[in-house]
Amino acid sequence: MITKLIDVTTIPGIHWYPNGQTALSGIPLMLASALDRLFQSWAAQYDAKEYQFPPFIPAHELARLDYFRSFPHLVTFPITLDPGEANLSRFAEGEPMNAAGELQLTIPSPISNVMTPAACYHCYVRHQGETMHAPTYLTTRATCFRRESVYAPLERQWSFSMREIVCIGTADEVKAFLKHFQQHIDEFFQQLRLPIEWKAANDPFFNPSHNPKYLAQKLDPVKTEMVFQNHLAIGSINFHRNYFGEAFGIRRDGKEAFTGCVAFGIERWLFACLAQFGTEYALWPAPFRQGA
Amino acid sequence: MITKLIDVTTIPGIHWYPNGQTALSGIPLMLASALDRLFQSWAAQYDAKEYQFPPFIPAHELARLDYFRSFPHLVTFPITLDPGEANLSRFAEGEPMNAAGELQLTIPSPISNVMTPAACYHCYVRHQGETMHAPTYLTTRATCFRRESVYAPLERQWSFSMREIVCIGTADEVKAFLKHFQQHIDEFFQQLRLPIEWKAANDPFFNPSHNPKYLAQKLDPVKTEMVFQNHLAIGSINFHRNYFGEAFGIRRDGKEAFTGCVAFGIERWLFACLAQFGTEYALWPAPFRQGA
Repeated sequence: MITKLIDVTTIPGIHWYPNGQTALSGIPLMLASALDRLFQSWAAQYDAKEYQFPPFIPAHELARLDYFRSFPHLVTFPITLDPGEANLSRFAEGEPMNAAGELQLTIPSPISNVMTPAACYHCYVRHQGETMHAPTYLTTRATCFRRESVYAPLERQWSFSMREIVCIGTADEVKAFLKHFQQHIDEFFQQLRLPIEWKAANDPFFNPSHNPKYLAQKLDPVKTEMVFQNHLAIGSINFHRNYFGEAFGIRRDGKEAFTGCVAFGIERWLFACLAQFGTEYALWPAPFRQGA
Repeated sequence: MITKLIDVTTIPGIHWYPNGQTALSGIPLMLASALDRLFQSWAAQYDAKEYQFPPFIPAHELARLDYFRSFPHLVTFPITLDPGEANLSRFAEGEPMNAAGELQLTIPSPISNVMTPAACYHCYVRHQGETMHAPTYLTTRATCFRRESVYAPLERQWSFSMREIVCIGTADEVKAFLKHFQQHIDEFFQQLRLPIEWKAANDPFFNPSHNPKYLAQKLDPVKTEMVFQNHLAIGSINFHRNYFGEAFGIRRDGKEAFTGCVAFGIERWLFACLAQFGTEYALWPAPFRQGA
């Protein structure tokens, strides 16, 4: 249950849309950009290579993860109309939208893509079938899409910005990478007196009691969340074991590669920092304003 | 018809996906970022306010423009499954994807949004119903979505990045703004010896001979494109008259506001500059590298 710590919709530069999305301008946009620069500076500690990935992921790539059975409730699909002229005319010349604002589509084209649900999936798709001769570090910022039953500005949105830093390597290389970041980020929180607790978590599987992946996660947690004020997970550290290495045929040191990632929800960090430090840009701690 | 000036898929850091999208890394990503910084510096000449808009536009907002009748062939819709547990189970427990990689969706939720087709629409939605007491300048970069029958890397993509600089004002204010940018950009092209011609153009209406909007554009062109090597439109200057002011109830100086925009297709600029200047970052003209 989300309880409001602050009402961010009263802050100039945060524009909330009833469809579960926000526009940013002014100070909030400056702060969101500064947060991402901070995460990029952390990625640079590992010389992580920056990628800008496309907004869609081919469905057949996500199917390797059994994604559609695990998260059918979250996923958003991009669809278009079948391009036959008769089909388009039937849509265009009828009533494309009803009085409730709902589109009345005619026949769709085949649906073969998914809106990015998590930034790091792109990294494994990109490197599929490769043999890595050294640990590989990547970083990307992506707009991610998750349908929820209730949305709240900055806290829980249909679309949101996620920065990830990813390691593909041996089990030990990935563990060292994740350990470094947990320590580094924890010191950062303490230095800034940002009230964050680390908590083990599970991914939000559909029908969890029937899903062996959920049960495996419960027995051996792979996700540790950064929880602000016992209220909002603003990021997470994830150890995937060889799950993606196996699914995408990525090898390292003669075996399926291990992977791990550090993920930052940019709108949620913005929420936490606005709640903690207020809306005066000049009063935000210096590390958040660097490079502005 | 697209004829290849260069094969960009051989350039390291450009990763083409068969679904009509690209990932960028390395030098191409640095160049794309430098291009956007250049456009932002031009927006700053007018103190244009920067916005980061969401990826969706509510369908009822686009319906004000009769968008679904004019561009049904281009539009991409985000859809989700009806969240009822039986419906999700039917999808998840069946065969979510067939052997051709096509998803076999069960009942969708009502479809009330559209993937952003052009960055500047967000500006008029955002300021709808307002009375402007001065000319208003805005800028935004958005991922835009247009379904095409054929895609080509950087040149014609299902999704691409568009930077726009927008003016909302009186007819004279908008005309002065557009004239300034046409001159400024033209001088820039000449200074850099980038072979660009300005050409009047029309929007790609569905069934154009039946669409009064197409006929109006033909009689009085509103779009002037920056065409590279007689081959690829990399940007455009658009005078919308009071079309958006009327549709969204925006007023200026006692009348419906006029609007205009300057639009830059970032992947297409990248294509033109790679074709013209090559792939050595250091050999690109200085204005493209500033702030890197």
